[in-house]
Amino acid sequence: VVPTIPPPESDDDESWVWNQIKAEVRRDAESEPALASYHYATVLSHTSLSRSLSFHLANKLSSSTLLSTLLYDLFLQSFSTHPTLRIATVADLLAVRHRDPACESFSHCLLNYKGFLAIQAHRVSHILWTQSRRPLALALQSRISDVFAVDIHPAARIGKGVLLDHATGVVIGETAVVGNNVSILHHVTLGGTGKAIGDRHPKIADGVLIGAGATILGNVRIGAGAKIGAGSLVLIDVPARTTAVGNPARLIGGKEKPSKLE
Amino acid sequence: VVPTIPPPESDDDESWVWNQIKAEVRRDAESEPALASYHYATVLSHTSLSRSLSFHLANKLSSSTLLSTLLYDLFLQSFSTHPTLRIATVADLLAVRHRDPACESFSHCLLNYKGFLAIQAHRVSHILWTQSRRPLALALQSRISDVFAVDIHPAARIGKGVLLDHATGVVIGETAVVGNNVSILHHVTLGGTGKAIGDRHPKIADGVLIGAGATILGNVRIGAGAKIGAGSLVLIDVPARTTAVGNPARLIGGKEKPSKLE
Amino acid sequence: VVPTIPPPESDDDESWVWNQIKAEVRRDAESEPALASYHYATVLSHTSLSRSLSFHLANKLSSSTLLSTLLYDLFLQSFSTHPTLRIATVADLLAVRHRDPACESFSHCLLNYKGFLAIQAHRVSHILWTQSRRPLALALQSRISDVFAVDIHPAARIGKGVLLDHATGVVIGETAVVGNNVSILHHVTLGGTGKAIGDRHPKIADGVLIGAGATILGNVRIGAGAKIGAGSLVLIDVPARTTAVGNPARLIGGKEKPSKLE
Repeated sequence: VVPTIPPPESDDDESWVWNQIKAEVRRDAESEPALASYHYATVLSHTSLSRSLSFHLANKLSSSTLLSTLLYDLFLQSFSTHPTLRIATVADLLAVRHRDPACESFSHCLLNYKGFLAIQAHRVSHILWTQSRRPLALALQSRISDVFAVDIHPAARIGKGVLLDHATGVVIGETAVVGNNVSILHHVTLGGTGKAIGDRHPKIADGVLIGAGATILGNVRIGAGAKIGAGSLVLIDVPARTTAVGNPARLIGGKEKPSKLE
Repeated sequence: VVPTIPPPESDDDESWVWNQIKAEVRRDAESEPALASYHYATVLSHTSLSRSLSFHLANKLSSSTLLSTLLYDLFLQSFSTHPTLRIATVADLLAVRHRDPACESFSHCLLNYKGFLAIQAHRVSHILWTQSRRPLALALQSRISDVFAVDIHPAARIGKGVLLDHATGVVIGETAVVGNNVSILHHVTLGGTGKAIGDRHPKIADGVLIGAGATILGNVRIGAGAKIGAGSLVLIDVPARTTAVGNPARLIGGKEKPSKLE
Repeated sequence: VVPTIPPPESDDDESWVWNQIKAEVRRDAESEPALASYHYATVLSHTSLSRSLSFHLANKLSSSTLLSTLLYDLFLQSFSTHPTLRIATVADLLAVRHRDPACESFSHCLLNYKGFLAIQAHRVSHILWTQSRRPLALALQSRISDVFAVDIHPAARIGKGVLLDHATGVVIGETAVVGNNVSILHHVTLGGTGKAIGDRHPKIADGVLIGAGATILGNVRIGAGAKIGAGSLVLIDVPARTTAVGNPARLIGGKEKPSKLE
């Protein structure tokens, strides 16, 4: 039932993706009775992707003092009143399915990718931040860091179609901006240099690929389609469609000679 | 109610900080009813910083087999009978507030900074270690690593006024020593070379700043006020007030030309 | 009761190790009443190492939707029907005890080493994968990544006698192979370059040592007994008994001049 090639990204395929997810999970629940109750509670009992995602995030992020009921209401209300969040969720699901060869299905991503889940929860914390509900936004950031080992400041702005692969150890600072269709591997830092206050974090344009363990520091610009090599330390601007590698990173050319990246 | 500049560090401002925290949390609980019960249970219902911190740590670190009641008693008893632990907690709170531009308030740190919480729990595991209660110290280390992704051996000695920023992936070995007023970013390793036994881990003097992802290996000395660049691999002594960067790290000068760091 | 030097590795010392563990835990339970109930529930109440390990893993990896009873049955059945899993568990316990100077006892490793626990759970997810129970295998991978910050694809093949030290942030891709008696420090990536599909991950031969934060990408071969320096970025084959260091890594010689590693 899962097509090999998902449809092109668009703003209105939420119901298409949700139907795919339900079909995948129904098939899996039949073939794996041990997961049937988990699949029913997390996906099949829900009437929309937003409800399923809110339930799953609330269960993952709840604690003895931050109850899952509180978190479920918070997530569902945010997804319901902000269609851009739902559009971004769908774009992220399509991005993971397109770009990660280890991704089996949309439901695999929804249920199991902590990078995907961390971004969805971050977007809610960002909404709270813009609403001046800072204590709740920061509490959510903290739970995301505890549970997924992904630390994204609520003020950071993250585009859609973003893949956070493996995700452990990702740190994204307060004034960082990440564009659309960006892929970020694990252990990546978008941080400050420690010498500046105010606008002090990287700006990542659309379509950038940042390899595992890369550290990008300061208010630098990484141009559209640039590639940052694994383990690089980037303290300078990187032009569009250019590759940067090394510690400290040097630019090694544009589209024609990309370096190895993941 | 939060002053822009906290008072200078001293050994007797525990009650001042605790009053600040309560005032901050009262204000936040009023503006954010969704957190009121969490704020009451974690802060406002307690009669001291030690009790609030013990409750919060016990909830975070408990499991189905290590009950929160056991951990609460353990933390509270340690903080009650070791005033140096309480002094260090206060110094850490002041340090985070001073040095991290993303830190909103003392309560933000107390409630949400896993690096801060990991250090407080580590200090209790260190007390247990010195009391020859090794199995309990090691169980606590393991829970801290599971919950906060911070792995500090109970025997390691950590000073006061320490900032562990973001904290994910920090590893500090058995014979490491960290001085006062040290700042350590995420993914930092104070490890062994794998070739030595016995005293085999780094000694970090006061006021050192260690950038994200830096790896310092072996029984080397990092002098007071030195700066270790992000992503560096340090296998040698670094003199006081000197900066080391690169893989392997080279020394690039003293106070006058510090390199970028976070 | 714990001998300083464990017996040589063999396929039949499961009962010897299990008896050691019980003796250690009995001694610890006596000296530390605070842990007596934990020690009884996790070790002393069980009739075999497989049952104790299954109970401990199930407690660690359970969630509100993946119940510990389900996981316990799953682990115990896998260990019961696959003797090679039990042999590998014992070899891992011996390896940690031999190679990690911070390891106090077999029970210290069994109870507290998240790298050890992550590998044991991975081996069960690998069995599920080979049985075409992919949704369950992937759910287990996801829980291991959430709880231990170790992300090993269920399809990856891991040998026995493997030490995953500290373990936070380890990522091992779908087509990676890790031989016997390999030591892997924290933050190590065995990943893809992002440019290939199919067989795209490293092959690590027996006895390799991979330092903290090393990133090995692509379908490259790391020969038997090779050493990969901390923080290295390896994109090429490394011959047997050769050391590779740096970003990008260069080969710096064989057995006679090994570089520092952890």
